[in-house]
Amino acid sequence: MATLVLLRHGESEWNAKGLFTGWVDVRLSPTGEQEAARGGRLLVEAGLRPDVVHTSLLTRAIQTAYFALDAADLHWLPVRRSWRLNERHYGALQGKNKAQTREQYGDEQFMLWRRSYDVPPPPIADDDEYSQVGDPRYATLPPELMPRTECLKDVVARLLPYWYDAIVPDLAAGRTVLVVAHGNSLRALVKHLDDIGDDEIAGLNIPTGIPLRYELDERFRPVKPGGEYLDPEAAEAAIQAVANQGR
Amino acid sequence: MATLVLLRHGESEWNAKGLFTGWVDVRLSPTGEQEAARGGRLLVEAGLRPDVVHTSLLTRAIQTAYFALDAADLHWLPVRRSWRLNERHYGALQGKNKAQTREQYGDEQFMLWRRSYDVPPPPIADDDEYSQVGDPRYATLPPELMPRTECLKDVVARLLPYWYDAIVPDLAAGRTVLVVAHGNSLRALVKHLDDIGDDEIAGLNIPTGIPLRYELDERFRPVKPGGEYLDPEAAEAAIQAVANQGR
Repeated sequence: MATLVLLRHGESEWNAKGLFTGWVDVRLSPTGEQEAARGGRLLVEAGLRPDVVHTSLLTRAIQTAYFALDAADLHWLPVRRSWRLNERHYGALQGKNKAQTREQYGDEQFMLWRRSYDVPPPPIADDDEYSQVGDPRYATLPPELMPRTECLKDVVARLLPYWYDAIVPDLAAGRTVLVVAHGNSLRALVKHLDDIGDDEIAGLNIPTGIPLRYELDERFRPVKPGGEYLDPEAAEAAIQAVANQGR
Repeated sequence: MATLVLLRHGESEWNAKGLFTGWVDVRLSPTGEQEAARGGRLLVEAGLRPDVVHTSLLTRAIQTAYFALDAADLHWLPVRRSWRLNERHYGALQGKNKAQTREQYGDEQFMLWRRSYDVPPPPIADDDEYSQVGDPRYATLPPELMPRTECLKDVVARLLPYWYDAIVPDLAAGRTVLVVAHGNSLRALVKHLDDIGDDEIAGLNIPTGIPLRYELDERFRPVKPGGEYLDPEAAEAAIQAVANQGR
């Protein structure tokens, strides 16, 4: 049996502004830093000590790992980072205001881009100010792997090699693994773990800053589907708040 | 030709209090955080972009790396940590007040423990509150490798395997390497790089928070002995201040 803990980064500077972020490398807001530290304290209270940490290449996830490990006095843990844990690339919508986009394209198109499994937004132009082409952190990524837009299906496809090749070997070695990532890269991972259908996944939201613990069996599948949030009441309240948005 | 950058952590909570620290895991003071950020800005101003970071397992070095990379917008860099980059283990002196120790044991013994190459302080007892025996970060270290005290010669001996096996391969691959560590682990490395004699090394001090850049030749030896501080004037002032201490 292996233990996997997922942690979604907290509020970023762009969450507060209502902008599509994706691969744009914004920082945590002060609220986001506090959410991360609370995540670390929840680990301690649960007696959960990760042996290794995996993060995306995006600053807001790395900051979240820092503040969580700081609160848990675990800075010394080995850490690996990969673009495969990055947030979904939001294509040409990156840097755009969400409300304005909804007004411009209408509710149906807006929701299709946000929640459909296999409809990506239009690709971003390489010379767009919010394109990541030329960013040194992706310099070792062959051009054909560099996304210009992604739907959740694309995220599943590029995330799974990292799950199988980097995370599962840690789990197989008996390590408790902490993955600090993003709303959509974690939804992609949970979709795989819990074998959630392409339509059902639209309804799944992962709250920020609350560690989600999975005990995995010898096939690296959850003993208890959906896992367990370390603060179940806060998680339920956050999930309900998202479900009620726009009602 | 390869580029190596050394960065010594800034002021810790115990520096200010005048206590021997060694392997005791104290945090940076707010001044130390600012020193680290300045180190990051000096990297940017020098146009130096590391490709990989190595740190010790001690929080004050890891925090220094965090604040330096934060200032340089380089959080995404791959990072490796090793106990072999830790500060010198200060034995039974760990947690003791420096001034009181000097008074108790006399100037000669005090300086021998602080600056001699091969005289370690008395070993720390395993049940001493400042012993690291049982610390989970060293759980994978076989007992015979766990130091109870170290002189600088011991630090050279346990550091060099990491230099040869982890850092040199990065340099050989053409990567610019940033090593964030401690006064004595960096003195040990510089002793090796610049081939400094056992007696001469006593006079060498590395200032905190100022990146020290070495260009290395194909034998991984400095093209210019001693390297170059990214802020030479501040480095010189800091080295003079140490030299004048106690005069």
